[in-house]
Amino acid sequence: MPFEHTSERRIEFSETDMAGLVHFSNYFRYMETAERDFFEACGLDLINSKPGFVVGWPRMRADCRFSAPLRFGDTIQIHLAVKAVKDRAIEYQFRIFRKNPDGTRTQAAKGGFTTMFTMLDPDNGMLRSLDLPPEIRAGIQPAPPDALKRPADL
Amino acid sequence: MPFEHTSERRIEFSETDMAGLVHFSNYFRYMETAERDFFEACGLDLINSKPGFVVGWPRMRADCRFSAPLRFGDTIQIHLAVKAVKDRAIEYQFRIFRKNPDGTRTQAAKGGFTTMFTMLDPDNGMLRSLDLPPEIRAGIQPAPPDALKRPADL
Amino acid sequence: MPFEHTSERRIEFSETDMAGLVHFSNYFRYMETAERDFFEACGLDLINSKPGFVVGWPRMRADCRFSAPLRFGDTIQIHLAVKAVKDRAIEYQFRIFRKNPDGTRTQAAKGGFTTMFTMLDPDNGMLRSLDLPPEIRAGIQPAPPDALKRPADL
Amino acid sequence: MPFEHTSERRIEFSETDMAGLVHFSNYFRYMETAERDFFEACGLDLINSKPGFVVGWPRMRADCRFSAPLRFGDTIQIHLAVKAVKDRAIEYQFRIFRKNPDGTRTQAAKGGFTTMFTMLDPDNGMLRSLDLPPEIRAGIQPAPPDALKRPADL
Repeated sequence: MPFEHTSERRIEFSETDMAGLVHFSNYFRYMETAERDFFEACGLDLINSKPGFVVGWPRMRADCRFSAPLRFGDTIQIHLAVKAVKDRAIEYQFRIFRKNPDGTRTQAAKGGFTTMFTMLDPDNGMLRSLDLPPEIRAGIQPAPPDALKRPADL
Repeated sequence: MPFEHTSERRIEFSETDMAGLVHFSNYFRYMETAERDFFEACGLDLINSKPGFVVGWPRMRADCRFSAPLRFGDTIQIHLAVKAVKDRAIEYQFRIFRKNPDGTRTQAAKGGFTTMFTMLDPDNGMLRSLDLPPEIRAGIQPAPPDALKRPADL
Repeated sequence: MPFEHTSERRIEFSETDMAGLVHFSNYFRYMETAERDFFEACGLDLINSKPGFVVGWPRMRADCRFSAPLRFGDTIQIHLAVKAVKDRAIEYQFRIFRKNPDGTRTQAAKGGFTTMFTMLDPDNGMLRSLDLPPEIRAGIQPAPPDALKRPADL
Repeated sequence: MPFEHTSERRIEFSETDMAGLVHFSNYFRYMETAERDFFEACGLDLINSKPGFVVGWPRMRADCRFSAPLRFGDTIQIHLAVKAVKDRAIEYQFRIFRKNPDGTRTQAAKGGFTTMFTMLDPDNGMLRSLDLPPEIRAGIQPAPPDALKRPADL
């Protein structure tokens, strides 16, 4: 059962700020890219939205440590690992790597978020947490300790 | 009946790019700020969203000419003027001014967008244009030619 | 000599808004992705930045017409065509297509921007336009009328 | 000597996502708004940028816990408190409150970031940390424990 995924993308000009580096808020958007790709690789729908009934994954917490700057044009790899599967939530770890011209890669950030399975109550517009549905329980699993520690492969 | 509005805001660090200037896509977001404030000043709801029934204003077109750069920390004024009220759409003109330390202001951009009154069809998820509702017809009007041409007052 | 380019990317969750569609300001960011890829395909540097000397391409104007909504998870193609090469500026046309599950594609937007070759004056922080350098003149050319009109190939 | 600051702003339409809520990455941008306002209130420059010499505050880490959703049109207050002043870094705590129509407010998030005083090395483009300059040491101080715990005043 899948517990990790690596996505790759380029840094866009609009993601930089006047310091010449990627704005730190965008690292959290990069994490989301890997989350979507992970769900797709698992054959699961991340968002299940029909008019009048929206099920989604609001974030309960997020954190990131930044260890190397990212710049316009860099190619990055975002490694997702499932840290924990709770009754109503999933906890992810992400590591972001910059691919260097010489073929090596540099870890640029390590972080994570916890995301709660939730529906929008049609009566009052409030969020209500739900137990993870069976297809998600059956589709993903926590990463073994090694997968959280070892550098993801290129 | 109202036909113009001026909003004021600061430029955020996250809105700059590595050229040290505000990224041009953000000018369109500034226009939206003035649109929201204009609707509020008119006592109208910009978004009318109940579960299963969403009415909104997708944009049909947008344009902008950039005449002076904006930088982190600048205070800007965004002047909205209603250019035309159509059966199912509203056309806006926006001018964005940078407030200078000496009390003058510099026009940084002029642009606009046309926005269509629309509902999301609950059956198929498609957008369907609607006639403007009476409260909007009664609440706003096109700006007289002068208001489109004259520099907005500080 | 190159005069067009097609880039492909996915729509991110963070690019949607509460209407469930891609926020219109992001279409301009998609155009930039194709501009960067076009320069790379031509072997040219889009940004030439050394400390104390920054050369870039601020936008003089931008516009877009939106003809079909884009949603989270869509795969889009962004077709760039060089509309005009001026002394100090380049004018681009962009068309954005959504790839449909059945293999067809739908035009979602058509727009463009004009971008001026500029350096940042180290003495006063002002932008100064410059003649296009020879490597850019030699590296790109305006698209023939057909390339601006015909649907870009998948 | 100042150790806290409260900023106020509105939620923009472009800051929401298809779940109808503010995208979580934007909470980090709201924190930055309070940081800029805090520096201004202290009479300090957040960014000191001359051509060839850029001094700034890249983030070393950031985190946030989300406790209540924010929606388009909400007015929020962002309370900054200085958690620690290190040799080369400042650690901030932020709490974000939503102002309710009835005059109360709801804590929507609590988080923070640590930011390092840094210059861009003109020779190799690398970031180098620097000791905090005297005017910053003299201008701000860590918040007393109470200020980190007590609800900020409206």
